[in-house]
Order: sequence, then C-alpha cells, then structure tokens
Amino acid sequence: MRYAILGTGIVGRTVAERLLSLGHEVVIGTRDPATTLARTEPSTTGAPTAPYAEWQEEHLEVELLPFADAARIGEVLVNATGGRVSIDALNAADAGHLDGKVLIDIANPLDFSQGMPPVLDPANTDSLGELIQRTFPGLRVVKTLNTMTAAVMVDPARVPGEHNVFLSGDDESAKKTVRELLHSFGWPEASVLDLGGIRTARGPEMLLPIWIQLMGHLGHADFNFHVQAAHPKA
Amino acid sequence: MRYAILGTGIVGRTVAERLLSLGHEVVIGTRDPATTLARTEPSTTGAPTAPYAEWQEEHLEVELLPFADAARIGEVLVNATGGRVSIDALNAADAGHLDGKVLIDIANPLDFSQGMPPVLDPANTDSLGELIQRTFPGLRVVKTLNTMTAAVMVDPARVPGEHNVFLSGDDESAKKTVRELLHSFGWPEASVLDLGGIRTARGPEMLLPIWIQLMGHLGHADFNFHVQAAHPKA
Repeated sequence: MRYAILGTGIVGRTVAERLLSLGHEVVIGTRDPATTLARTEPSTTGAPTAPYAEWQEEHLEVELLPFADAARIGEVLVNATGGRVSIDALNAADAGHLDGKVLIDIANPLDFSQGMPPVLDPANTDSLGELIQRTFPGLRVVKTLNTMTAAVMVDPARVPGEHNVFLSGDDESAKKTVRELLHSFGWPEASVLDLGGIRTARGPEMLLPIWIQLMGHLGHADFNFHVQAAHPKA
Repeated sequence: MRYAILGTGIVGRTVAERLLSLGHEVVIGTRDPATTLARTEPSTTGAPTAPYAEWQEEHLEVELLPFADAARIGEVLVNATGGRVSIDALNAADAGHLDGKVLIDIANPLDFSQGMPPVLDPANTDSLGELIQRTFPGLRVVKTLNTMTAAVMVDPARVPGEHNVFLSGDDESAKKTVRELLHSFGWPEASVLDLGGIRTARGPEMLLPIWIQLMGHLGHADFNFHVQAAHPKA
C-alpha cells in the first residue's frame, strides 16, 4: 500500500518508519518542502526533535512533497500534522485527491497559545476528527492512535500487559482497513475498541489532558490506557 | 468520622452505605428534605433509581437534612450532587460551615440539556473541581472517584486486575485524608495516582465522554481505567 503521511514531526516520522519496515511505500506531505528541508533548528514544541533534513538523509526512499502531491499519490492518508493546522493542510490538497480515500487521523487539536498545559480546540461539543469529516465529506475519516506516544502507536509491546487503542469512524470498511493496519503494528484483536461513529472521536481526544498529566506524574511517555472490565461485552 | 454527603442519588447512597459499613456516621444533605422524601417516581437521569424515601426506610440511621445542616454537622463533606447544581448546593450551606473542611468532589459537570450524550460544563479550560475550590476558598477540595460507576468507587475489587483512581487537590493533608479513605474502600496504595493540584481535575473530568462511550460499547458500567506503564515513575 502507498501511504501519504501529512506532517513532518516525530509522530509522522515514527509512523513512516514503521510502515516502511512493513514493506509499504511512504511519501510525506508538508506545506513547502524547501522550507521544511532548510530548517536547521530542532523543533520547539514537545520533546526536542532533530531537523527533518537529518531524518530525510537516513530515509532517502521517502519523498517529501507538498501536501497536494502527497495527497494525490497516497492511497491511504495519515493526518500527523499539528491538530490546529490539519484543516489548512487538507485544504492545501485538491479535494479531488481526497475523495473516497481513508484518512487515519492520529492528531490532537492541542492549543499551546495560552501556555502549558495546552487546552483542546475544538473539544467537548466537537472534535478534530468530526471537524475533518464535516469539512471533507469525501474522506473516510478514522480517528485512532491519538491517545498515546508515537513509539507506542507503532509498537504496542513497548508497554507490557494489556492496553487499548480506540477506533471512531462512520465508514465500516475504512475502519476495517485501519484495524488491519493496527494488527500489523502489533495490536491484538481484543485491544482494538471500536467506539462507534466519528462523533465518538471527542472521547479519545479528551483523554489528552489526563495523558499529559500522567506523563508529568510518571516522568515518561511509555504508558497507555487499559479499559479493565469486570466481564466481557454484554 | 462524621461524613456529610451532599446529594441523594445513587452515587451518594452507595458511598453512604459503604461509609456506614466501615463504622462511620453519615448524614445526607438535600435542598429540601420534605420534597426529597415526597418523591414517589424513580429518578429519570441515568439508570432508574428507586425513590429516596424507599432507601431511607432501609437506612433509618442516616439523617436527611437541608444542605446547610448537613454541611454544619459533617466533619468531611462529599459532593455527590449533580455537577451542574454543586455550586448552588454549596451556596445553600453557610460558608462558615465549610471553612477548613475537606470536600471530596466525586461529581461530574454533565450537561444533559442538549440531549444524549451529555457534554461537560465546565470543561477544557476549567473543571468543576477548580470551580468549587475557587468559589469556596475555605474548603480543601479533593477531586477523586469521578471516573467510575458508584459500585466500583466503594468496591474496586468488583473489577478484577489492576486499575486506578486519581487524586487532584491543592491541600496535601486533605489528599492524605482522602487517600486513607480510598485505602479503607479497598484501593491499594499503588492504584492511587496523585495528579497534582486541583487544576488537574480537568483531566479526570474529561474522561467522562469516553467513559460513557465505553459503557455503550461494553453494555455495562463495571469497568475502570488502568494506566499501564512500561516502567515505574522516573
């Protein structure tokens, strides 16, 4: 499969590496490749991240393209942009290149403008997943993986024991595609909890505030949520 | 210890029964005891709940009092009101009866006015726990237990395996008091995760949307969240 990852940060790079290791083709989309490649300073949001150009040198098989070209070439799209610029990134792609495609939305709409800790925008009465689906009705949006650090997304065994990944989306066949990808990442069948339609994306997105608090409490990000139930689905 | 539970719903009753079984004294606060006792219809929010008067007949040792009297008599207060009326309930108590007391806030500010599922108000940039602490600075507010069904709050072994309860509050000695109460309910030391000051209450409160989704997914409420970590606190 040919994946287009939108976003050049640590999350996009981590997912790209995993997809490559599974034999997929990967292109990465950014606003302006020349600008992205010219950056020499580490990113300042979140954990320090090496400039993209350094990563690119180690992954010459991955082409860096403008959003529109990446979206055109990708058979499945992954939204790994900062959640506050996701709509802009998708607007930069021609809607004709989006129609009918699965978009795996792993982003969170974290707003750092009021300082730390970030708040969510949108939240509570809306979510980024819903906003993307509403704005681009031709996309088949599946929200998933946004509730953990990138290293755990692609290697769940990094956290021992049982823990969960959530799925939200209106298109059942798109969710099946994503579920199969999650299995190939190492997520057991029972770990994938399908919450329902894209409207349920607001639940997993609203996990972010406590996720950030827990990272502070633990002093690291190698953790995940497990839904411990007294008995199986009724 | 003498506990005053504010709120006559299933959550308040469940906590009252557990406190009684542990040998504590319990009074319950409501706006107008005569009105509460006169109700003959089951409650319509959430799961059907028998009228309070029926429960009262089986628990004659528990006095039902106006909020002000309950708050005056209680040495420790438990906020088990609907989160949207908590401030009104506390306003009904004389502030002089609140000063210096621990308030265990187990409520969630669920707003059902826009239909199901409910949204939170406040949320994201504020929380009920913070709002109570800000409005009644003499109280020592500890947010806890709001992330699970009442039966699990008071009997964590009802859900097998490891799972967690969160603590948020500005007053360390109040948190110590609450931690001891949680231990007496059956929560192991390692299951209690102290997130920090009362500002962190917004994290656990924002778990409610996914909690409601998971209840729908599982078909029951006998579950809880476990933070599965790859290694201990750094």
